[in-house]
Amino acid sequence: MNLRIPGPTPCPPEVLEATGRQMINHRGPEFADLLARLTSGLQTIFQTKKDVFILTTSGTGAMEAAVVNTLSPGDRVLNVSIGAFGDRFASIAETYGVDVVRMEFEWGKAADPDEIEKALAADPAIKAVLITHNETATGVTNDLETVAKVVRRFDKLLLVDAVSSLGAIPLPVDEWDVDVAVTASQKGFKVPPALAFASVSERAWKAAAEAKIPRFYLDFAKARDFRDKGQTPWTPAVSVFFGLEVALDVLLKEGIENIFARHARIGNKTREAVKSLGLQLFADERFASNTVTAVRVPESVDGPSLNKLMREEYGTVLAGGQARLAGKIFRIGHLGLVSEADIDATMDALRKALPRVGFQVPAAAS
Amino acid sequence: MNLRIPGPTPCPPEVLEATGRQMINHRGPEFADLLARLTSGLQTIFQTKKDVFILTTSGTGAMEAAVVNTLSPGDRVLNVSIGAFGDRFASIAETYGVDVVRMEFEWGKAADPDEIEKALAADPAIKAVLITHNETATGVTNDLETVAKVVRRFDKLLLVDAVSSLGAIPLPVDEWDVDVAVTASQKGFKVPPALAFASVSERAWKAAAEAKIPRFYLDFAKARDFRDKGQTPWTPAVSVFFGLEVALDVLLKEGIENIFARHARIGNKTREAVKSLGLQLFADERFASNTVTAVRVPESVDGPSLNKLMREEYGTVLAGGQARLAGKIFRIGHLGLVSEADIDATMDALRKALPRVGFQVPAAAS
Repeated sequence: MNLRIPGPTPCPPEVLEATGRQMINHRGPEFADLLARLTSGLQTIFQTKKDVFILTTSGTGAMEAAVVNTLSPGDRVLNVSIGAFGDRFASIAETYGVDVVRMEFEWGKAADPDEIEKALAADPAIKAVLITHNETATGVTNDLETVAKVVRRFDKLLLVDAVSSLGAIPLPVDEWDVDVAVTASQKGFKVPPALAFASVSERAWKAAAEAKIPRFYLDFAKARDFRDKGQTPWTPAVSVFFGLEVALDVLLKEGIENIFARHARIGNKTREAVKSLGLQLFADERFASNTVTAVRVPESVDGPSLNKLMREEYGTVLAGGQARLAGKIFRIGHLGLVSEADIDATMDALRKALPRVGFQVPAAAS
Repeated sequence: MNLRIPGPTPCPPEVLEATGRQMINHRGPEFADLLARLTSGLQTIFQTKKDVFILTTSGTGAMEAAVVNTLSPGDRVLNVSIGAFGDRFASIAETYGVDVVRMEFEWGKAADPDEIEKALAADPAIKAVLITHNETATGVTNDLETVAKVVRRFDKLLLVDAVSSLGAIPLPVDEWDVDVAVTASQKGFKVPPALAFASVSERAWKAAAEAKIPRFYLDFAKARDFRDKGQTPWTPAVSVFFGLEVALDVLLKEGIENIFARHARIGNKTREAVKSLGLQLFADERFASNTVTAVRVPESVDGPSLNKLMREEYGTVLAGGQARLAGKIFRIGHLGLVSEADIDATMDALRKALPRVGFQVPAAAS
């Protein structure tokens, strides 16, 4: 099966093998050694010397952790959304009583750093900026480097959903001075889902010391206290820790620059191949994501039928559209464990499937 | 390695093999089928027709879910604690602004249902009772059946931490009319940690509709909405779902009555063997747990040294004491994957290790 969704991504056999290892005591010395090695490996991938914690949650749990650890009810924040996951970040903050200024950009486009600058200049009460690095729902990557510079100039907290970017496209946490960056195991890391990772800056720790939103399971301070004795506060997803250890070895052996280059190359290849099939990209190509490509479902085609046919007869699992994009796009994941051959196989399957659901592929593409 | 801690428990080879399977789309039909089968299997183990949800968190996350889904800040609750995990339940509730009446019993003893009855009679403002079924920190099982009857008579919500009991000792959720029972994958279920399970009664759903504590990641209503379309709201720990499917088959094949009988038999065997080594049980034997046995560290012995020796030279991993019991007890887990032979091996190791740390085992026990 060619699993081409933007997470969970397929895992290398050696990662799966490690995931199947027998349990150990999560409060014993073996686990303490493992936690230290994993934390150090994650810091390398995050390109940071800041604290990085491993939480047993999905990426959404880590987004919630970013909010509840640094903010208080009534705090005003600017939430920059370019899609469903950006909207989710705002919903989480609103759930906890944060006063969210929702800045929304057209789905398929990137956020405009100038607009963010204007908003911060106009409203000094804003304490933090929440933004998605790579919007999985639309296949768009924000220019986080520029946004981070703006946020830094205004001395605000910068909380970043890096779930589908970190470990696949560049996000040097220290160089860009991101306060909290969160990601999850089942994306760029090629590890099964269950774990999320969060980096926490000194500025974020200061905010945490004053943050009044209640938190227990997701409390960074508890994670820090237990990390210092080689543990997690609560029983961790031990199997996935085992998988992560092997996966980090694989990632560090490839080297992060090579990983970024591979994703850039394959992202570009995917977009060119999609266009050569006569299909339209959903995202503004200047900001097209190198981890997931959203493709407009042609007028003549029923989106779910295409995905079903691809899955059942061509062994290729694509993602559908989410929220307002349901049925309007399909998405091809190309992050983590992905090679040129996987994209060739996907396009080959699309070339055969599309005519069967009512879309004629140009002759040149056959 | 003889892993004799009260979770994570060792997992059967077939569970580990399943845990190492390749990823699937968590929003596709294969996962929907899996979720339906697992939910049904869990209902059998919970002995309930109520909703049962699978959350990607530890048991503590599920305890938090029980609190945040059913209560509002300022609600008064009675928290019945007989140890560290009972105290944790209270701390979670207090974190979220609940007005917690802390009823505490001496560690090593069970809760007295008459005291609970008196407290409920004395304070009609109490809305819910929070209680640990099996206190992992002390090796004591509360008489939950009697407590549940009391709580029902006063028509209060009953929230139960069943993390180290459910699936190993009897907890018929419907018969005892428990409102929220939470447990986790790495205990009686013999599955790696990452998943927690929560049953939710109609009474709990009514409370949830009015509960004002904010919640997002742990929201039962979101879990219900997505369960109805064969999904979880957030990316689940897919590997552990695979393991759970196999583990449920194993459990249902053994049959819950046989599982309960095995734990009762092995619990009893463990206690008798501990005493025959000249050691003292920490718990009141009338309420001794059949999933974990706490043993007093003899005066002459350093607890951590004993555990270290057992681990390093006898291949046996014991748990230490927690909180105020650190260094004062050691604990033997005997839940999930455990047989008489595992206990024999543990006692054999203790018989050899104890004299080396300064405790003479009676001749009759050699």
